[in-house]
Amino acid sequence: VIKSFLLAPGPTPVPPEVLAAMALPVIHHRTPQFAAVLAEAEEGLRELFGTSQDVLILAASGTGAMEGAVTNVLSPGDEVLVVNGGKFGERWTRICQAYGLRVHEVVVEWGRPVAPQMVATALDEYPATRAVFVQASETSTCALHPVPAVAELTRRRDALLVVDGITAVGVLELPMDRLGIDVLVTGSQKALMLPPGLAFVALSERAWAAAERARLPRFYFDFRRERKGVAERSTAWTPAISLVQGLRVALAMLRAEGLPNVWARHERLACATRAAAAALGLRLLAPEAPSPAATAVLLPADVDGSALFRYLRDRMRVTFAGGQDRLKGKIIRIAHLGYADAFDVVTAVAALELALDCFGVPVELGRGVGAAERVLAGGLPPRS
Amino acid sequence: VIKSFLLAPGPTPVPPEVLAAMALPVIHHRTPQFAAVLAEAEEGLRELFGTSQDVLILAASGTGAMEGAVTNVLSPGDEVLVVNGGKFGERWTRICQAYGLRVHEVVVEWGRPVAPQMVATALDEYPATRAVFVQASETSTCALHPVPAVAELTRRRDALLVVDGITAVGVLELPMDRLGIDVLVTGSQKALMLPPGLAFVALSERAWAAAERARLPRFYFDFRRERKGVAERSTAWTPAISLVQGLRVALAMLRAEGLPNVWARHERLACATRAAAAALGLRLLAPEAPSPAATAVLLPADVDGSALFRYLRDRMRVTFAGGQDRLKGKIIRIAHLGYADAFDVVTAVAALELALDCFGVPVELGRGVGAAERVLAGGLPPRS
Repeated sequence: VIKSFLLAPGPTPVPPEVLAAMALPVIHHRTPQFAAVLAEAEEGLRELFGTSQDVLILAASGTGAMEGAVTNVLSPGDEVLVVNGGKFGERWTRICQAYGLRVHEVVVEWGRPVAPQMVATALDEYPATRAVFVQASETSTCALHPVPAVAELTRRRDALLVVDGITAVGVLELPMDRLGIDVLVTGSQKALMLPPGLAFVALSERAWAAAERARLPRFYFDFRRERKGVAERSTAWTPAISLVQGLRVALAMLRAEGLPNVWARHERLACATRAAAAALGLRLLAPEAPSPAATAVLLPADVDGSALFRYLRDRMRVTFAGGQDRLKGKIIRIAHLGYADAFDVVTAVAALELALDCFGVPVELGRGVGAAERVLAGGLPPRS
Repeated sequence: VIKSFLLAPGPTPVPPEVLAAMALPVIHHRTPQFAAVLAEAEEGLRELFGTSQDVLILAASGTGAMEGAVTNVLSPGDEVLVVNGGKFGERWTRICQAYGLRVHEVVVEWGRPVAPQMVATALDEYPATRAVFVQASETSTCALHPVPAVAELTRRRDALLVVDGITAVGVLELPMDRLGIDVLVTGSQKALMLPPGLAFVALSERAWAAAERARLPRFYFDFRRERKGVAERSTAWTPAISLVQGLRVALAMLRAEGLPNVWARHERLACATRAAAAALGLRLLAPEAPSPAATAVLLPADVDGSALFRYLRDRMRVTFAGGQDRLKGKIIRIAHLGYADAFDVVTAVAALELALDCFGVPVELGRGVGAAERVLAGGLPPRS
């Protein structure tokens, strides 16, 4: 047997407890039974988002909720500002352009966080900006953008802050209401420990007000309909019932662990991975503001990174993520989010050591694992 | 979340494919559908046992099949020889005594393999011996007994060789027919990658002849009834249907891997574990003939081994096996059988390093893992 390891930043592994819940018979969604499941999920999602607003549950992947975040708060011809520091920043731009918005980009070098000053300058330059779009964690580069600092800027202006929290919600503290985020989006297949298929979005009071005025066309992703559904313990359209049954269990697991412990776990796993990379002499793509969701390791220049990635995936059965576009073949992204613990990092680092060794890179086997273990030791439970 | 790791020599982890098969609806056992499942399982079991004889499938744990191995081939007052080098050798003695047999023991120091000469001498001393009982792999000490050499002795005499193959069948090559083993027993929760609940046993021609003469009382474990069942693609009593459905899949997985590859995998994982122990300065309980199923590591004398074991199990959620009886608190048994691969060894060694460190034992974190990786690198698939 060769076991398979899913160590990419989404989809992430699903706990057996969640798989078991999803294997239960499908119940009908217009029933008190399903209403109870939704009510429980809603409560957990509000806690996770740090909001008193409704959190909408959509049968879609994260991109669907991103599209809805655009179409529900804007009107044709509106000006928007997009922080573009990677593939997902680029996606905000493409969605906005598809709907005929006037997009101004704050272009950020891949791997770097946006400087809040750049956003401030752009907002001064384009005072008609109706919304600012940003990733909390730019999954393609594994860099964190400083959402709290950006929120400081948008809160004081008539511009909504729309945050892609797809590899951030449940990974790090991102309290929507306290920070003043106007639209926060995430997906099921990341920190929420579910298969892909659900997206979640919450809107601030002023975003809901904008939704009433917004004139971009929308139907399936009409958040006003979905909000009405939440009030009635229902959904606008047929929900992905099994995934919602799994969601209930996943949220209960996160609640049992305690969100501060969940965030601390992600930070510890990320620190251990970064320590391992350093011990192996590998540089990070995003050393300045590395995401606790995943770590992008720069491969030695003389290594065929795409071949290494495929060897790990197809021969060793360890699925990391490679680099996209200009980063193709240059980085390996090691995820440590969701249903991840200390021994996933140990496995990830050992796999990387073995693969590098196999590709002729001089590595001392066990050196990276040892460095990771020294960090992980700090997170061990006490002896009694 | 804290993930749980089952790294004890039984029960062992069950592959998701097998769990999925066991989650299918229960079918009735007196049907052509179940007969087909049994027929397929029977074929796989014969290959696994290296026999052209029927392999009986019992709803029982391994001990049940051990009892049946005694009661089906012997009569009250018969003399038997038991190789007793651990808890499971001792179990043969206790079963034989429970049925009023006259037991002569070849007592072997725990951790050592029996010397075939000792068996030869005992057989000369007790020429009326009707059967010799031995473990192929003595799970309590992680030592291998030399079954082929013992079989050389019994083949030439009128004494049956009864082998407990519970942590040997599917772990190492143990071809029943070729070696001349008369009764071979195993259980489902070891190399067969199933939950506990099934036991398997096969008898040689001369063991079946003995079964006709044997006068010890038996009913549930009457192998003659079960043999009739095999011929009819059925079982004597109600079978553990879900486990048999899982068995079919587990055997298909072993066949897909190829038995020589399965044995080589176990040997490689065992070598890696032993290399890690050596790198950490830990001695083995059974260095002379270590089992490829599990490795018994002697803990430093000043460590409270029971506390270390409990810390690993209850706090780190890594379940090894401790020592039994006189070995309690002195050893940790690290299993690497069944649904086990390279990263299980990596996890096991990292967990042991972290726990030893936590208990104040001076260990260089990563040193054992590195030593394991150097062995495991030899088993990696080629680059293309």
